[in-house]
Amino acid sequence: MSTRVTVWHEYRHEKKNPKVAEIYPKGMHEAIASHLRNNKDLQVKTATLDEVDHGLGGDLLDNTDVIVWWGHVAHGDVKDEIVNKVHERVLQGMGIVVLHSGHFSKIFKKLMGTTCDLKWREDDNEREILWVTRPGHPIVEGIDDHFILPNEEMYGEYFDIPEPECTWMMSSFTGGEVFRSGCTWTRGAGKVVYFRPGHETFPTYYDKNVLKIIENAVKWAAPSAGSVAHTFGNRKMGWVDEK
Amino acid sequence: MSTRVTVWHEYRHEKKNPKVAEIYPKGMHEAIASHLRNNKDLQVKTATLDEVDHGLGGDLLDNTDVIVWWGHVAHGDVKDEIVNKVHERVLQGMGIVVLHSGHFSKIFKKLMGTTCDLKWREDDNEREILWVTRPGHPIVEGIDDHFILPNEEMYGEYFDIPEPECTWMMSSFTGGEVFRSGCTWTRGAGKVVYFRPGHETFPTYYDKNVLKIIENAVKWAAPSAGSVAHTFGNRKMGWVDEK
Amino acid sequence: MSTRVTVWHEYRHEKKNPKVAEIYPKGMHEAIASHLRNNKDLQVKTATLDEVDHGLGGDLLDNTDVIVWWGHVAHGDVKDEIVNKVHERVLQGMGIVVLHSGHFSKIFKKLMGTTCDLKWREDDNEREILWVTRPGHPIVEGIDDHFILPNEEMYGEYFDIPEPECTWMMSSFTGGEVFRSGCTWTRGAGKVVYFRPGHETFPTYYDKNVLKIIENAVKWAAPSAGSVAHTFGNRKMGWVDEK
Amino acid sequence: MSTRVTVWHEYRHEKKNPKVAEIYPKGMHEAIASHLRNNKDLQVKTATLDEVDHGLGGDLLDNTDVIVWWGHVAHGDVKDEIVNKVHERVLQGMGIVVLHSGHFSKIFKKLMGTTCDLKWREDDNEREILWVTRPGHPIVEGIDDHFILPNEEMYGEYFDIPEPECTWMMSSFTGGEVFRSGCTWTRGAGKVVYFRPGHETFPTYYDKNVLKIIENAVKWAAPSAGSVAHTFGNRKMGWVDEK
Repeated sequence: MSTRVTVWHEYRHEKKNPKVAEIYPKGMHEAIASHLRNNKDLQVKTATLDEVDHGLGGDLLDNTDVIVWWGHVAHGDVKDEIVNKVHERVLQGMGIVVLHSGHFSKIFKKLMGTTCDLKWREDDNEREILWVTRPGHPIVEGIDDHFILPNEEMYGEYFDIPEPECTWMMSSFTGGEVFRSGCTWTRGAGKVVYFRPGHETFPTYYDKNVLKIIENAVKWAAPSAGSVAHTFGNRKMGWVDEK
Repeated sequence: MSTRVTVWHEYRHEKKNPKVAEIYPKGMHEAIASHLRNNKDLQVKTATLDEVDHGLGGDLLDNTDVIVWWGHVAHGDVKDEIVNKVHERVLQGMGIVVLHSGHFSKIFKKLMGTTCDLKWREDDNEREILWVTRPGHPIVEGIDDHFILPNEEMYGEYFDIPEPECTWMMSSFTGGEVFRSGCTWTRGAGKVVYFRPGHETFPTYYDKNVLKIIENAVKWAAPSAGSVAHTFGNRKMGWVDEK
Repeated sequence: MSTRVTVWHEYRHEKKNPKVAEIYPKGMHEAIASHLRNNKDLQVKTATLDEVDHGLGGDLLDNTDVIVWWGHVAHGDVKDEIVNKVHERVLQGMGIVVLHSGHFSKIFKKLMGTTCDLKWREDDNEREILWVTRPGHPIVEGIDDHFILPNEEMYGEYFDIPEPECTWMMSSFTGGEVFRSGCTWTRGAGKVVYFRPGHETFPTYYDKNVLKIIENAVKWAAPSAGSVAHTFGNRKMGWVDEK
Repeated sequence: MSTRVTVWHEYRHEKKNPKVAEIYPKGMHEAIASHLRNNKDLQVKTATLDEVDHGLGGDLLDNTDVIVWWGHVAHGDVKDEIVNKVHERVLQGMGIVVLHSGHFSKIFKKLMGTTCDLKWREDDNEREILWVTRPGHPIVEGIDDHFILPNEEMYGEYFDIPEPECTWMMSSFTGGEVFRSGCTWTRGAGKVVYFRPGHETFPTYYDKNVLKIIENAVKWAAPSAGSVAHTFGNRKMGWVDEK
């Protein structure tokens, strides 16, 4: 049974910044999607901000099991009605994998209930070391106890998120900062993943460890096949003896 | 050092329903506030929906350490700008104690990131038994391992909330339902408490156990006196060696 | 890829109590195992207390992905060296599904770090209603928002366990008690499940909902196929630049 | 109302290693205890391994609200009966603050249910930067968003602990490792704190930030004054209507 994945991308940097366009000629979403397509259990689509309804209209969300989300400079351009639809779908069971600067997206802040703010720095000499802090978690399947990204943007604590249900990866940076780089939460029936790396000016989404983790996260966040809808609202006294 | 408490109340039922007005002639907020005023470490104010800015304007919120919140029929009448101010203050460290039907308030849903929906029933023969599930927690200080409310509205699971950091009380009802009646979360520097009992047609806010728990919750949710502001944003490489 | 399951059972009641023997002529372990064997992705073995090394010797544990554990009157007869081996295997990634009176087993107490004590009552008129409190969780796949066991032993809070990472099921009983009946924790790389029902004098392990949940729990608790061993101990300065 | 603190120390390094003795002429326990004694709300005692019953005999534990624990080379010399008594007292509500190499103590492993293993390195050029990851938590009251220890032993992830209920501090080290340096859990009615710094060959327990955090942790881990004992065991049907 395959998992239907939609990779959503802001897709603005590539159009304006030649450096980004050179690294990701088809956009960051295609770098991610093309990796996911190698997994025959995944059905992969992409959607971007400047499409009609941000590419998320019609029944696409209803037919999406897991959405991957990258945004940065245009969080404010995402329409609230679309954010609300994504939010509703997550509570119903659709998984969401929020990447890097997606920490400031409307949908992530709405799911977290906090500012999701952090410290940051762009520096050409910043090295990120990512450490596994929950070996055995399906999201770090096949990942060594650490891996290194030679160049990345720094994100530093305090990261204003609710205490994660699981912190499965933490980073250190050249400058001495630390960050909870891999976290999960549950909202309603939906699983929420945050994974830190992916600054647009570095080829992070070609790194085999990063891609493997995104792929693992998509599989982990997929809804259970046989989920039963829960019910809310008014109920009569005596229901239990009428059965 | 005293804790500054604001008891916020929708205060609509009392004005329209004679049954509620008879039980709470000065409003439910006064029943709660008058109990809290017995504690000399607490400075207690009240605020209600139909006051200017819902009684929460000026610098009141900036001078509130813990807010208690009861609402039911008029959640939609609470202005978003006030909700946002309360939210911001919670993230800065102001505690919030959400009571009963406040589960559907804008502020609680914004803090939780979920629908906060549930099952419910009003029945004159509903008895609630509340069980302590985290003995030793400061919020259940002085409370026996259970207590009984002879008449209450039923709330039943599934309660659509993020997994609580601590579930310190659970209820059973005559009809056979169960509910997580006492829960806590952290959002930013602020502590969030949900406590279930308090339907407007029953004298719940005169019950000594209920009042004791609200008082304990207010004390527990108060911010640390010496909290240091955290910082976000851009930082230079090399900061650590410049010190 | 199949999951290797070992259903471990104390298997003493059936030998001494005719009522239990009548309900479970081949033992409770066989009632559970025979259901699991219907799932072709599971390879199912059983082991019992009075076998050599409690049936867990040789390399059985090394070749077990998930162990199911039921014990009651003879927890003290389980040898510490076997308990330690099970514990070690859980930390390495073997899942464990602890059932009913297994709450007082050496292995569960060792994993929890607490007494795991609770309230209880055997009464012929006790009905248990089990409510789903985390819809969408793989362990409650295919389960309605509640189900009823017409006769069960009562377990009541306070249940002395560490705060669960997820509480996916809660029960109410005829007597008015409540209980966290479905809980999960992580210990090392291993997943730990507790599931309440299963008193020996009732035919609980023939109930389709109970069996479905045990089957789901076994699948959920299975280790990731591609887990990478983590390392501990002394490391040199400068390792990162030597790569 | 004062909190009764017992600072327990292995006190072996100081007797054998002149370097340690020079830094801590009266022992590490005295460095910590003498700071705590400045707080008039704390009644401070010390106890050490080589005293009778490790200094924890008689009714000392029954009259201790919070115990601070430092051990390293002699964890195995601590008698199991004393460990069990400390464990029992924690479940009853006594707080415990485990420091540095106490991560491998019998009592911490018993409370956690895991190996509590980690990576480590002693190097004269190791600098630890400790970052606050839960601003507003009482344990980091008065602490800036980070502080630096110019020389410390490195501890690195994976740290084999159950997912903390709150991770309020994380460290980075010169070598690029990260560590969850400040964590809390609840076990029964007792609060458990782990705080990383404190290698015996460095003057860490004279650092004002480290001392402030230990003092805060002691205050936070103290039991509630009015805790009510919980009950376990058999209960009759019909109790609720007999009231």
